[in-house]
Amino acid sequence: MSETESPAEGGRRRGGRSGRAGRTALPFPVDQKPFRQPRRRFPATDIVSADALEAIHDASLTVLEEIGMDFLNAEARDIMVWAGATVEPGTIRVRMDRGLVLEAIKSCPPEFTLHARNPAHHVHIGGDWVAFPQMASAPNCSDMDAGRRPGNQQDFRNFVRLGQSFNIMHLSGGYPVEPVDLHASVRHLDCLHDFAVMTDKVFHAYSLGKDRICDGIEIARIARGISHEQLTREPSLLTIINSSSPLRLDDPMLQGIIEMARTGQCVVMTPFTLAGAMAPVTIAGALAQQNAEALAGIAFAQLVQPGTPVMYGGFTSNVDMKSGAPAFGTPEYMKAAMVGGQLARKYNVPYRTSNVCAANTVDAQAAYESVFSLWGAIMGGGHFIKHAAGWLEGGLTNSFEKTILDIDLLQMVTEFLDPLVIDDATLALDAIRDVGPGGHFFGTPQTQARYRDAFYAPILSDWRNFESWQQAGSPTAMEKANRIWKECLAAYEAPPMDPGIAEELGAYVARRKAEGGFKTDF
Amino acid sequence: MSETESPAEGGRRRGGRSGRAGRTALPFPVDQKPFRQPRRRFPATDIVSADALEAIHDASLTVLEEIGMDFLNAEARDIMVWAGATVEPGTIRVRMDRGLVLEAIKSCPPEFTLHARNPAHHVHIGGDWVAFPQMASAPNCSDMDAGRRPGNQQDFRNFVRLGQSFNIMHLSGGYPVEPVDLHASVRHLDCLHDFAVMTDKVFHAYSLGKDRICDGIEIARIARGISHEQLTREPSLLTIINSSSPLRLDDPMLQGIIEMARTGQCVVMTPFTLAGAMAPVTIAGALAQQNAEALAGIAFAQLVQPGTPVMYGGFTSNVDMKSGAPAFGTPEYMKAAMVGGQLARKYNVPYRTSNVCAANTVDAQAAYESVFSLWGAIMGGGHFIKHAAGWLEGGLTNSFEKTILDIDLLQMVTEFLDPLVIDDATLALDAIRDVGPGGHFFGTPQTQARYRDAFYAPILSDWRNFESWQQAGSPTAMEKANRIWKECLAAYEAPPMDPGIAEELGAYVARRKAEGGFKTDF
Repeated sequence: MSETESPAEGGRRRGGRSGRAGRTALPFPVDQKPFRQPRRRFPATDIVSADALEAIHDASLTVLEEIGMDFLNAEARDIMVWAGATVEPGTIRVRMDRGLVLEAIKSCPPEFTLHARNPAHHVHIGGDWVAFPQMASAPNCSDMDAGRRPGNQQDFRNFVRLGQSFNIMHLSGGYPVEPVDLHASVRHLDCLHDFAVMTDKVFHAYSLGKDRICDGIEIARIARGISHEQLTREPSLLTIINSSSPLRLDDPMLQGIIEMARTGQCVVMTPFTLAGAMAPVTIAGALAQQNAEALAGIAFAQLVQPGTPVMYGGFTSNVDMKSGAPAFGTPEYMKAAMVGGQLARKYNVPYRTSNVCAANTVDAQAAYESVFSLWGAIMGGGHFIKHAAGWLEGGLTNSFEKTILDIDLLQMVTEFLDPLVIDDATLALDAIRDVGPGGHFFGTPQTQARYRDAFYAPILSDWRNFESWQQAGSPTAMEKANRIWKECLAAYEAPPMDPGIAEELGAYVARRKAEGGFKTDF
Repeated sequence: MSETESPAEGGRRRGGRSGRAGRTALPFPVDQKPFRQPRRRFPATDIVSADALEAIHDASLTVLEEIGMDFLNAEARDIMVWAGATVEPGTIRVRMDRGLVLEAIKSCPPEFTLHARNPAHHVHIGGDWVAFPQMASAPNCSDMDAGRRPGNQQDFRNFVRLGQSFNIMHLSGGYPVEPVDLHASVRHLDCLHDFAVMTDKVFHAYSLGKDRICDGIEIARIARGISHEQLTREPSLLTIINSSSPLRLDDPMLQGIIEMARTGQCVVMTPFTLAGAMAPVTIAGALAQQNAEALAGIAFAQLVQPGTPVMYGGFTSNVDMKSGAPAFGTPEYMKAAMVGGQLARKYNVPYRTSNVCAANTVDAQAAYESVFSLWGAIMGGGHFIKHAAGWLEGGLTNSFEKTILDIDLLQMVTEFLDPLVIDDATLALDAIRDVGPGGHFFGTPQTQARYRDAFYAPILSDWRNFESWQQAGSPTAMEKANRIWKECLAAYEAPPMDPGIAEELGAYVARRKAEGGFKTDF
């Protein structure tokens, strides 16, 4: 796994499951089930009343009508004015009445499929389906061996390999870590090329201006080997749009929405509303602002192209009022995640939420904040649980050990969501009859027939008794995770790719690099 | 805090909040809200259909009709026969038809109050109320200073002090650790006396035969300073009844049910149905067996005394099929906890579940298994979340550090359950208007007025940035917990007690000890 290894060439040479030339593929060290999305078959939990939800909805529409939102892109403002919004001359402030917004969002598809280059890895968004994208956009990464450091291409690729290898990681949500050793002008080309070649799952492109997002769309199209027309019918790329809360949509993001909507690709509209910092200190107020910003972005995408596949993103949390640091996996976070789901259901738009924490290491805090996040996300009806594996430090670090911990958590959540089978065989009256009062079930035919697959076998949980565990050196979950990610990385195999497609991808990236990539002005 | 300190004398001497004679009371080192029970104001989650629930119900009644249950107490068998059950001559096997069981359980109160000697610490059971009892029945305890060891009286008392000190610990669920340095014949007298004197919360007595449970009932009565008649009207003591799964109720437990029911005290009927060991390897089968055992015990309590306050206990989990060790906080555990709640709701009986894990130390595993347990317990409609703070190692150890971790988790769950206030003030349109697009909310009047109490301030979570955290020595949650339990213990104050009552309690215990306590035959 050298810095200079070309994944494209690797993929071409291998072309199958046979592993690298001259190397016998290692068996994957973790038992895992095939790629599949969990489905939440019970209703999501409504934690506020219909009246309370209506009050949030109403307040957010009042915000858009009376205060408005700054759109930092002239074409976007023109589209909004064309649709009936008002922009006072010489300003960037867009005010839109509730009729415009509510009419526009009616064209949002309630469900859609994101298409991967491997059809077995298509991801269904909406309904009762849940999708787990890998953590994204961390400036740093960490592991127990090398500690915490800014990301580079090698780390980036290692995370991409893990994302490909684990079936519970359904797609990419962005760069798992920012590879700062790549120049910003061409970084997106290298990274998108890696996603296209090193994985066969759906990936994400950043809305950092028109050129970059168009590169992402074209690379997604080439990777799938389809026409522009087919791409437009089959969303294959997603982008996360963050408003600059409060109440501002920046130019590069608006360019992203425009290009993605015009080509039928998926826009995830996520305000970043930390209560007490970029939003009111009350969760209700932060939610009202979140809803205003989300509705404005979603309505804009629909006005660009009705039917654009979008998600309603919620990322409301609180800040630590002592330090100003963001907090995650808190009671307030859980409540905001669940009300966010209620709002998304009200608008019949798929819901994006997150698996996040503020911990600095993979300790008890990381685990409880993450499981509280998942509790809010799953019971709140989340469809797309962003940052599902790896997130530490409020998003500043992607941790290799936390990745393994989260994969275990996600697999457990998936098992939890699997329906309990209740039938004559599982009710097991015969076994209860055979054993009778005072016996035990270890040796019954039912137990013998089922014990191997009866229960989820966790990756990390150490279920030895205390004495055995102590004799083994009292290992922690973090230490076991460290061993596992390295073993999994060693067993990575590039997914097969048609040589013609690999060549076309390589040529596209080479041409765009020769053209200078994206002229960075920062 | 010496081994020989007499809490009764301490209590008498102090008689108030002023602390020990000659000592200025330390301030309690953790900010906490007043004693209050959380309420779950949204519906519990049904994860199986009404038909599936009916199938479990039906299977469990078939078990009781066709297989029956062993009752290892002649008086109990006589009561069952009197009610219409059948016992073949010369056997202990009780078969009961569904009509008998379903008719008997109709007299269960759907809600009731457990009365503490301090009326501010009464605990409401049922409805949308949730109660958190301290961990119980661990043979060992542990802390980072002294490691893991069998429990003794000093450890027992230290846990009791913490249980009294933290307002989120609503009552005792049994001995937090078994004080093995006290002889078994008198251990219950010392322990019950400690509960009565060192806390003013509701406590528990073990159903280890008639004499011991009668001592518990009498000590609870004396501590409250009430008559036998008032005690019968006002349940003030609880006992956990475990069936010896599969399908057996032992003699000491049946004696406990009889005495508690006759005096109107609370019986928590909890089968211990580990799927694959004492119950079928399928969760459905384990639940059918759990339900059979729970219904039999509950029906028996109602036949002894209609209207006896009871709880339906669920403790179904899976075992690690490699080692046979019990697993907790697993996906299977969550599902079982939630279906247990559906069953209890079907019978309109309050529901006991647990906050449990299998971890050997306070690491990520301990945290994720515990929060998964709480997720199942809370969303499943648990009223009495046993072992709410302290549990490690599948119940073999009560940990002082885990106690603090769990207290933090329980406080977070309580905050999560607090309704979100949605009104004009919290929707904060004025603040959003004042700040406008692109501003920030740190200095707004709304933030200034509310920031101190806006969000839950966790005990353990470390929200410093990575650099500050690292400069502080990279402390883990466990290390912080270690400091906190010691500070809280140092700040413990015995609750005031009427000198006459303290004297009566002391005299009762002295007399019973002089009589030899309970003649142990084991």
